[in-house]
Amino acid sequence: MRILVVNVNTTESMTGAIGRQAAAVAAPGTDIVPLTPDFGAESVEGNYESHLAAVAVMEAVRAFPEPFDAVIQAGYGEHGREGLQELLDVPVVDITEAAASTAQFLGRRYSVVTTLERAVPLIEDRLTLAGLAARCASVRATGRGVLDLERDPAAAIEAIVACCEDVVARDRAEVVCLGCAGMADLQARVVARVGVPVVDGVAAAVTVAESLVRLGLRTSKAGAFAPPRPKHFKNWPPGRPASSS
Amino acid sequence: MRILVVNVNTTESMTGAIGRQAAAVAAPGTDIVPLTPDFGAESVEGNYESHLAAVAVMEAVRAFPEPFDAVIQAGYGEHGREGLQELLDVPVVDITEAAASTAQFLGRRYSVVTTLERAVPLIEDRLTLAGLAARCASVRATGRGVLDLERDPAAAIEAIVACCEDVVARDRAEVVCLGCAGMADLQARVVARVGVPVVDGVAAAVTVAESLVRLGLRTSKAGAFAPPRPKHFKNWPPGRPASSS
Amino acid sequence: MRILVVNVNTTESMTGAIGRQAAAVAAPGTDIVPLTPDFGAESVEGNYESHLAAVAVMEAVRAFPEPFDAVIQAGYGEHGREGLQELLDVPVVDITEAAASTAQFLGRRYSVVTTLERAVPLIEDRLTLAGLAARCASVRATGRGVLDLERDPAAAIEAIVACCEDVVARDRAEVVCLGCAGMADLQARVVARVGVPVVDGVAAAVTVAESLVRLGLRTSKAGAFAPPRPKHFKNWPPGRPASSS
Amino acid sequence: MRILVVNVNTTESMTGAIGRQAAAVAAPGTDIVPLTPDFGAESVEGNYESHLAAVAVMEAVRAFPEPFDAVIQAGYGEHGREGLQELLDVPVVDITEAAASTAQFLGRRYSVVTTLERAVPLIEDRLTLAGLAARCASVRATGRGVLDLERDPAAAIEAIVACCEDVVARDRAEVVCLGCAGMADLQARVVARVGVPVVDGVAAAVTVAESLVRLGLRTSKAGAFAPPRPKHFKNWPPGRPASSS
Amino acid sequence: MRILVVNVNTTESMTGAIGRQAAAVAAPGTDIVPLTPDFGAESVEGNYESHLAAVAVMEAVRAFPEPFDAVIQAGYGEHGREGLQELLDVPVVDITEAAASTAQFLGRRYSVVTTLERAVPLIEDRLTLAGLAARCASVRATGRGVLDLERDPAAAIEAIVACCEDVVARDRAEVVCLGCAGMADLQARVVARVGVPVVDGVAAAVTVAESLVRLGLRTSKAGAFAPPRPKHFKNWPPGRPASSS
Amino acid sequence: MRILVVNVNTTESMTGAIGRQAAAVAAPGTDIVPLTPDFGAESVEGNYESHLAAVAVMEAVRAFPEPFDAVIQAGYGEHGREGLQELLDVPVVDITEAAASTAQFLGRRYSVVTTLERAVPLIEDRLTLAGLAARCASVRATGRGVLDLERDPAAAIEAIVACCEDVVARDRAEVVCLGCAGMADLQARVVARVGVPVVDGVAAAVTVAESLVRLGLRTSKAGAFAPPRPKHFKNWPPGRPASSS
Repeated sequence: MRILVVNVNTTESMTGAIGRQAAAVAAPGTDIVPLTPDFGAESVEGNYESHLAAVAVMEAVRAFPEPFDAVIQAGYGEHGREGLQELLDVPVVDITEAAASTAQFLGRRYSVVTTLERAVPLIEDRLTLAGLAARCASVRATGRGVLDLERDPAAAIEAIVACCEDVVARDRAEVVCLGCAGMADLQARVVARVGVPVVDGVAAAVTVAESLVRLGLRTSKAGAFAPPRPKHFKNWPPGRPASSS
Repeated sequence: MRILVVNVNTTESMTGAIGRQAAAVAAPGTDIVPLTPDFGAESVEGNYESHLAAVAVMEAVRAFPEPFDAVIQAGYGEHGREGLQELLDVPVVDITEAAASTAQFLGRRYSVVTTLERAVPLIEDRLTLAGLAARCASVRATGRGVLDLERDPAAAIEAIVACCEDVVARDRAEVVCLGCAGMADLQARVVARVGVPVVDGVAAAVTVAESLVRLGLRTSKAGAFAPPRPKHFKNWPPGRPASSS
Repeated sequence: MRILVVNVNTTESMTGAIGRQAAAVAAPGTDIVPLTPDFGAESVEGNYESHLAAVAVMEAVRAFPEPFDAVIQAGYGEHGREGLQELLDVPVVDITEAAASTAQFLGRRYSVVTTLERAVPLIEDRLTLAGLAARCASVRATGRGVLDLERDPAAAIEAIVACCEDVVARDRAEVVCLGCAGMADLQARVVARVGVPVVDGVAAAVTVAESLVRLGLRTSKAGAFAPPRPKHFKNWPPGRPASSS
Repeated sequence: MRILVVNVNTTESMTGAIGRQAAAVAAPGTDIVPLTPDFGAESVEGNYESHLAAVAVMEAVRAFPEPFDAVIQAGYGEHGREGLQELLDVPVVDITEAAASTAQFLGRRYSVVTTLERAVPLIEDRLTLAGLAARCASVRATGRGVLDLERDPAAAIEAIVACCEDVVARDRAEVVCLGCAGMADLQARVVARVGVPVVDGVAAAVTVAESLVRLGLRTSKAGAFAPPRPKHFKNWPPGRPASSS
Repeated sequence: MRILVVNVNTTESMTGAIGRQAAAVAAPGTDIVPLTPDFGAESVEGNYESHLAAVAVMEAVRAFPEPFDAVIQAGYGEHGREGLQELLDVPVVDITEAAASTAQFLGRRYSVVTTLERAVPLIEDRLTLAGLAARCASVRATGRGVLDLERDPAAAIEAIVACCEDVVARDRAEVVCLGCAGMADLQARVVARVGVPVVDGVAAAVTVAESLVRLGLRTSKAGAFAPPRPKHFKNWPPGRPASSS
Repeated sequence: MRILVVNVNTTESMTGAIGRQAAAVAAPGTDIVPLTPDFGAESVEGNYESHLAAVAVMEAVRAFPEPFDAVIQAGYGEHGREGLQELLDVPVVDITEAAASTAQFLGRRYSVVTTLERAVPLIEDRLTLAGLAARCASVRATGRGVLDLERDPAAAIEAIVACCEDVVARDRAEVVCLGCAGMADLQARVVARVGVPVVDGVAAAVTVAESLVRLGLRTSKAGAFAPPRPKHFKNWPPGRPASSS
């Protein structure tokens, strides 16, 4: 099966890291296709950038020329999953939700350890809408931005480990989710130092997507994710004339 | 004071109707400026179109060349308000939330009467995130799309009135919010036939925005709506070269 | 339009301060009428006094001899708003709810900074019943009573500012509501020292009441606030013989 | 032990019925003292009357000249219990809460069957604040007012039985609470016809109050119910000069 | 009346202490019968032991050869109450729920002070399912196991008192529930040192059970607690051949 | 990898069906081992039987003589998962939770279609404790018992299909979970007739368990699921002398 793994920012090196993490856990026979959006921010840290990423991810998926079996939206706490579910019949998996669902099988309460404070509300809101907030002990920030993870991985790991210890001690977390797709590369080194299970969203999402495909399950079209109605779009997609989609 | 009232779709006649409704309730001295996005769908009915509208509204506001005191996002149940709040210091008012807040002053439970079934989940989610769901009795659809409101207002009014009666009788609603910016033109005729208060979101949002400006209140920058960090954008905004914003 | 602004305690100087704050933000053409109840406590700090205030406010409004367009109940966290809504067709605005509704347009989470610890449960309960608790980060007390605000404003301001800083730092509040009508006079000096928006309930309530009147909206009579049934009262109102009201 | 059972309305015959119901279940050695407020409505059906009843009940208890061990507020869904708890060290039991607590020991979900539609919001709000709403299946009205219960008991019983059957069938209620102190007299006849446990709030409250007294438990003074601060009251209580209480 | 009070563990001395506590508060004429299960753990501290206790308690009650009027399950936060309710028509009272219900009549928020950290999730879950969590301020552990209470009561009391003070100061608890049946013997000494009401679950459960019996109320058979269907059991109860029950 | 799939009842033919369903979806290299408990009810339909099943499943797993990588508890809405998690380091997956988690990736709201009315509360409670209730639209019963599924599959399918249509139409469900392990055999025929995704819990649990093993994730021992403390057990396990485990 083929799974598209779509980065939400335009930094190709991060797409590469996400793709490697996905491929590392994929089952034999799964073809992981990492995608980078054509437009948007080099890192997504806040609502403006996240709304833009939502659109860019949808356009990247729409433009993909070959068939595929599932899509993973590889941004933590970002907007847009619902839109992809309207556009597609195949399963769409958000890494925020895959991580939380996975964590819930491992312990009674989980926390998310993320990058900047400004990511916290976005993640909280996604978990609330996804119905996955009841067992969330906390969402806490390390204070290090998305691109800092690549620039100084050693410092990032120290900050993440300290935050993991904090959520276990203060918030009674029993499992930690790494709250940024860019942390995928660091997971192994964090796990080695933290005494509770650590879930990477990209890896979790790959197994969820594979599972849904193997079970023959597809996105329900009976309600929230019915296909868009045919209608006129003005100046969209960028660079094309007006069209009915 | 000047208030931008931004339509979420690209249908100019609807922008006109929204602008007229806003101007009709504006205080003396308030300058209502209706805006239509440069790109997007002719009507917003679902997540894909709503995410796109979120971006289009933000770009429309960013491109506006003169100062303004507040912004109204005139789409019911649409994404994007949080992004505008990051970009701006002036108050940003979503009509979904303005209508619900207003309704809560008038009765113990309110319902939203909207267009299509597919709008219901979007509105429910917005109300949940806005902390305005506890007193929402129901969100119900008339089954008539956004553009149907203009095409056949008489039929739309019949459907809206029937739905209003339904939410009062079945859901114990005491107040009804008209759940589409495009219903603004119809409000007077609906009010005349329904025995409970009927709130139009555009009108409500104008008074909220004016109130916030008069009170000297601005969007908090202390948490969720801190300004975006400076960073590189690729291929955005459309038609411009890459830039740091 | 004429708006009654009813103090909940019997301290005339506080009625004066509330009236001045209301008049300062009222639109041209709005006539603010401050009222003091005929009976009750010199300050309302707890349930016994609050229940009594509820009744006293209702009797003060019933006894007002001229027409009016809206009523503001100027007590923070006090009982009684629902009773007024039964008695009246015009809008009734509680400052607790006006402040919270206003705060929600400015940030994702708000806190209330109030007087004594004993006020905290009352405010929490009002916000819960009003459906405005979901985004409330905390209700915290300065430890200074209602009448202390007049007696030593400088000390009150220090205590309020310290408490505001506390809720921003510890509770992630992005907006602060001043949780006592008696704080209206102090607002300007608090705002100058706190880095987040500060909402005064009296001022907020004036703009809400004006907005509802301008929009032609009145209290719904379809459910919770239907007019009282005609019936016999014994020894009430005080000083009058039994009567059917 | 002596337990005051305070009617919330001024109809003496209803006080009598409540007192008989209480005495019928009281343990040997318990002295039931029924009280009628000195002022207020002949029946309490709505917020205005309920706020007034809250004050009248408190004054009736304050004026009682002898010692007592507990107080029962015998109004369903009425305001005021918190005020009594401030004024007293002995236990205060609201029949709404006693009925719900009792019902929860008997089945997984309970409903309340009450008088008029207008009582429903009051009862719902009391249960919410009391933390007893999670297992409440519904609060439904028979459409018969408080005084109708005395005037035509046979018709009242038919309406109550029909409503009980309705909540069992439609709302999956497993237990029913009779939602009006005035239904106490009718309980035996309702029980005989309904296939689920039926709880009368007055009877339940007597056993709760006796239990608390026997266990030596008193109202906590550590938070919400700390005694009122000494202060000046104007024109209160009625007929007395101003005093510091 | 006869009330069975069933210990959840197999330590006879603890059954004795529980029985004494129950008898001390029982009304004249109440016959308290303490029971110890035939199988299970010497102390119940965790899910495995709690599930086993649930079964052992049910078998102990089923094997009791004489009639009885109510059953008390004297384990804090343990599984199994629902099963007993299926098997019996008489009232079944769990001490976790009796304590919480009682506490709610005494203050606005209560905390539970229990033994080990591992008991906290069990108690939280029981309170959630019982619909008694809304006013629970916290469940906190002293760090001392069930059997430590008997081994070193003086140290246990110190730890409990310290934890009580902590929940009052940090969690705003106004009432404390002693979260272990084995704490029954210590209650008097704790009460003497803590400034808020302290509720022992065993004592509370006795008064609840007596109350339900006196009111003639029995477990509802209309839903969750309908009697088990007749069916074949394999190798159960232990030591007996297969049978249809 | 080896996964134990444990039936909760003692009907071997049902264990067989569950095992076949599990094997049908298992990945190459996964060894599915179906287990039947040594004691308990022929079908589990209620709390008494479910508590017993919890213990029987735990003993069956403890008695399994060889290593294994994960355990699936194949009972819908049954007790006991938490106990297994204490006893084991490997992942434990309850089919109730696996089905709900899977459903949440496919639609905004899911319903559970189960056997008898008496199963509904058990399933609701499991979903609540698992933090998976927020998006549950309803749990509804077909009225056909567990063993009826084997006895008359055609009638069972008709009843299930009708119930599926009902939850889509009335409860706005977008996905349906088959709420009984015994429905595994019927899934294919139900799917063919229902227009929304249909999730079988056994199949879902296999993919969840495989995913957790592949990701190297194990049950957290940091909180709720810490290993039981060593202690003395009386008369347990059945047929063995007392022992310290």
